[in-house]
Amino acid sequence: MTITTKSPPFSLRIPIRFSHCDPAGYVFFPRFFEMIQAVCEDWFTQELGLNFSEMIIQHRLGQPTAYTECQFIKPCLLGENLDMAIILDKYGTSSLHLRFIGTVAGEIRLCARSVQVVISLENGRPVRIHGDLRKRLQEYMDNVEVAIDIEPQRR
Amino acid sequence: MTITTKSPPFSLRIPIRFSHCDPAGYVFFPRFFEMIQAVCEDWFTQELGLNFSEMIIQHRLGQPTAYTECQFIKPCLLGENLDMAIILDKYGTSSLHLRFIGTVAGEIRLCARSVQVVISLENGRPVRIHGDLRKRLQEYMDNVEVAIDIEPQRR
Amino acid sequence: MTITTKSPPFSLRIPIRFSHCDPAGYVFFPRFFEMIQAVCEDWFTQELGLNFSEMIIQHRLGQPTAYTECQFIKPCLLGENLDMAIILDKYGTSSLHLRFIGTVAGEIRLCARSVQVVISLENGRPVRIHGDLRKRLQEYMDNVEVAIDIEPQRR
Amino acid sequence: MTITTKSPPFSLRIPIRFSHCDPAGYVFFPRFFEMIQAVCEDWFTQELGLNFSEMIIQHRLGQPTAYTECQFIKPCLLGENLDMAIILDKYGTSSLHLRFIGTVAGEIRLCARSVQVVISLENGRPVRIHGDLRKRLQEYMDNVEVAIDIEPQRR
Repeated sequence: MTITTKSPPFSLRIPIRFSHCDPAGYVFFPRFFEMIQAVCEDWFTQELGLNFSEMIIQHRLGQPTAYTECQFIKPCLLGENLDMAIILDKYGTSSLHLRFIGTVAGEIRLCARSVQVVISLENGRPVRIHGDLRKRLQEYMDNVEVAIDIEPQRR
Repeated sequence: MTITTKSPPFSLRIPIRFSHCDPAGYVFFPRFFEMIQAVCEDWFTQELGLNFSEMIIQHRLGQPTAYTECQFIKPCLLGENLDMAIILDKYGTSSLHLRFIGTVAGEIRLCARSVQVVISLENGRPVRIHGDLRKRLQEYMDNVEVAIDIEPQRR
Repeated sequence: MTITTKSPPFSLRIPIRFSHCDPAGYVFFPRFFEMIQAVCEDWFTQELGLNFSEMIIQHRLGQPTAYTECQFIKPCLLGENLDMAIILDKYGTSSLHLRFIGTVAGEIRLCARSVQVVISLENGRPVRIHGDLRKRLQEYMDNVEVAIDIEPQRR
Repeated sequence: MTITTKSPPFSLRIPIRFSHCDPAGYVFFPRFFEMIQAVCEDWFTQELGLNFSEMIIQHRLGQPTAYTECQFIKPCLLGENLDMAIILDKYGTSSLHLRFIGTVAGEIRLCARSVQVVISLENGRPVRIHGDLRKRLQEYMDNVEVAIDIEPQRR
């Protein structure tokens, strides 16, 4: 008998700062995409064991976003702490289908999906995800359990 | 006999600057959403006759994005000029369904859709689009012809 | 006999992210000023006991920068951790004279000075720093000892 | 008899956008440094005849800022047009001593100085400014007349 204990998704806590906010007093929506990039970086480094800066600088690999969508459910206010969770929905030869759920004290504020493609920064071509990274991605998919599950609703 | 002469959509030319670009040498994707916001501002002021800064500061109205999706078709490089065109697909009581097509010398680089909601900045509630603005929106929909028509392909 | 134990200055550790870096691969210098703002926010909230977001939103006080200078001594690279320390050199009726020293693993990367003015966001006028805040500022000046002391060299 | 007609300095008109502004409703000060970078880029390309993007991408030369100071005289508001003028105070073997004066309808809002160093992006070392660029810099210094002359006042 095997008992599998699932873990919550990798998450980055981001304090909402003055520099994120617009004249309406709320986070200016493009800043959320910077936060999505930030959680990806830490996920690569801390969860997948692939140091993000080495990946870019030494290995000359990038992970540009080919498609993204985001539903902004409730605004974020200066001083709040946004927990940005990252979920791997699937992966392909060179692509990652990611989902991001942003919550403040457990309350959903935004939900996004992104398709990223792993490319060579030398020639811009897609690079096959292989070996250890592939194994780590599969483990992440298998082991993560999402407490609040939600998808961006297309409008 | 009536001859209707349609116009190309309102467009903002944006020089790709050092501040837009990432260590891979291309525009960092969240910057495109700032550019999308920029063309909206100029469209309000120059095309719809509703001064954007007065709308925010005096009338205390905002146009937060409730949903957005973007397909990044080809990267943009430092020194290129991106033409960001804005198309109004439809509008509702308080909402604008907008589409954005970004081209460099006629070549498509990105395509986005956004749903924006006109709200009161005093209480965050949706505000009815009425009178002159409604008329201008209808005129813009009626009179614009899009040479390169494309939608973001959901992935 | 009194033994005074001085503390190191308040400091914020900032991971250097993709979004901070320019096509040259280093932090784009305006991002350092965003980091300087970030350490100020946390210093207000965590060290001075004046919640920064409440200060802006509820008390409608701001701390705009009236003057700043920065010497960029050595570039910061993607993946490094920058420790941004904040030093209070002096304070006046409404002004704060601050110094910022940015180090990576103890090595100096930048050194800045800023003069900030506490103002009312209602009318833009300077506001007298009084009571508890004044006391806390004095304590911070008295109790902080800077291991690496340096000033930006004007050029 | 020779009549020398001097020209006003090169200047970039920057519309103050939503993305520049903070919860206080004014331009967030780090954005001004992005604007300073923008006027430098256009000055290189349009005035000095050295295409900025080619300089970075093809010639692999950069112009990092080694020192900057800025006095923020009056805030800039959403919807205003900021004219950012660039003045060359002097130049050295590899360095440019620049001054920036930001005005709205002729009224001074900010004044900055920067020392930039021309470097090789391959090895980070300073590169000698020579030939055509040197000549153009001298011409710019000789031919520019500044109507409103001001320096940042150090505090």
